[in-house]
Amino acid sequence: MILTVTLNPALDLTYEVDTLVPGGEHRVAEVHQRPGGKGVNVARILAALGESVTVTGLAGGATGTAVRAALPGCGVTDAFMEIGGETRRTVVVAEPATATGFWEPGPEVTAAEWDAFLAHHRTLVSTVDAVVLAGSLPPGVPVDAYAHLIGAAGVPTILDADGEALATAVAARPDVVKPNARELARLYGPDTDARDAGRRLRDRGAGAVVATLGSAGLVADTPEGVYRAAPPYAMDGNPTGAGDACTAALTIGLLEGRPWTERLRDATALSAASVGAPVAGEVDLARYRWLRRSVSVEPYR
Amino acid sequence: MILTVTLNPALDLTYEVDTLVPGGEHRVAEVHQRPGGKGVNVARILAALGESVTVTGLAGGATGTAVRAALPGCGVTDAFMEIGGETRRTVVVAEPATATGFWEPGPEVTAAEWDAFLAHHRTLVSTVDAVVLAGSLPPGVPVDAYAHLIGAAGVPTILDADGEALATAVAARPDVVKPNARELARLYGPDTDARDAGRRLRDRGAGAVVATLGSAGLVADTPEGVYRAAPPYAMDGNPTGAGDACTAALTIGLLEGRPWTERLRDATALSAASVGAPVAGEVDLARYRWLRRSVSVEPYR
Repeated sequence: MILTVTLNPALDLTYEVDTLVPGGEHRVAEVHQRPGGKGVNVARILAALGESVTVTGLAGGATGTAVRAALPGCGVTDAFMEIGGETRRTVVVAEPATATGFWEPGPEVTAAEWDAFLAHHRTLVSTVDAVVLAGSLPPGVPVDAYAHLIGAAGVPTILDADGEALATAVAARPDVVKPNARELARLYGPDTDARDAGRRLRDRGAGAVVATLGSAGLVADTPEGVYRAAPPYAMDGNPTGAGDACTAALTIGLLEGRPWTERLRDATALSAASVGAPVAGEVDLARYRWLRRSVSVEPYR
Repeated sequence: MILTVTLNPALDLTYEVDTLVPGGEHRVAEVHQRPGGKGVNVARILAALGESVTVTGLAGGATGTAVRAALPGCGVTDAFMEIGGETRRTVVVAEPATATGFWEPGPEVTAAEWDAFLAHHRTLVSTVDAVVLAGSLPPGVPVDAYAHLIGAAGVPTILDADGEALATAVAARPDVVKPNARELARLYGPDTDARDAGRRLRDRGAGAVVATLGSAGLVADTPEGVYRAAPPYAMDGNPTGAGDACTAALTIGLLEGRPWTERLRDATALSAASVGAPVAGEVDLARYRWLRRSVSVEPYR
């Protein structure tokens, strides 16, 4: 059983329009609606790969209810904790070749709610084999939230966070950290090199660091060495869910204790397969298997 | 008691952003959320003016629940009928000087649901003094829906509809019809004159026709004569709710049987006051009273 933690889940709405005209009125041709937030997206992919997954975090209001109601349909078990605030929505206006995103702010979480969640999390982790912590923190949740949750996990952990939440969490020794290029730039400056940044994060406590670099693949600093991995060619499509697919693959590799070169092969292939999928965060399993044979994984020299 | 009918209500979301950048990602600074759809907006304004109002129509899903949950806070009584489909949302992305709108399609309504609503409506109208029918028809509702509802009302009716729904409803003899310039153009062509269009709609069955022409005010063909009315100057602000404010004022005038020149004065002033209000559909009552003394109402020659 895998637990994914999504402190700031969302109801993700995609509006299909022909052309976005600022100042105009748009009849939306198609609306797609699904539960989102990085931890929920990772859970959905893990479930699609046959893993048994429970999702937790903080959800509230009518939007929180809608998010939770859709979870069984994603093949995951709902263990969200109810809060008083209203879960956010995200709206992506999708033109044929462009996406424009609007992110609502998350709900305000009270200190009492956060304390209750720490207790809820302690109960949940006692029955799982790994914990994935992914995504932003809503207002009111302390910036060292992930450090506390990692410290209390008692099982392998994998972290996908940003900014101060990432910086403070690393000292709690997560087994795997998965930043992207933008997150590394925010930590170490715009000219940062993925290899240097990985080294620094490991020095500060991360067991392994897998930096995702978009269509260039990934650079990983692991206990077995430093590697770069890349798909056979740059994928066309929606890159929104690629990072979450990478996290899902790394979670399975962590659980199974597979060699790092194999974990990176899987992670690169699953990310690339998700970019080619018609809906963000879905994965074409046939494409995944084909890509796994075509990915290059090499020591970083 | 006034009944307003909103067959295709909405949860109206307004996202405040600094600048809308197509292809960009936007953190929404403020989210405003409220129940919408023309009949709901008219009801809210009537309630703000001290009228006792019941709202009905078709609502479903989590969004329908959110719409209905917010109605008591608007001072109106909820008599919506539950349907299986999901009520739509609208999203308006508001920059300081521009608004960009996205309208979700409405839910699919089944024939059985529509039959059940006709019965529900017959029960409701037996206890009210006037019925307001306003807004679009969701998919599945027959195009002559408003004709049936007007025919069954048995009390004075006021109609704000568009296209075929308007064209077929007029024969059922609503007491007042409130088209805007765009709706008249769709009925009678882009070069149509508001006075001619009003005449034609009265010939086809409307008791009176009040055409709203934006900042130019309105042109009305009534049993007491043809008039034009205008505010003292063009208002700056959000024009979204002006038509609904006009409908609300006309409803009160209809109920009270006031002279048409007075009804048009009230309608013009209330519309203009709503344009100046900070939130679409709210009305600044002090401004309304001031404007009522400044509006011009003249016979159309």
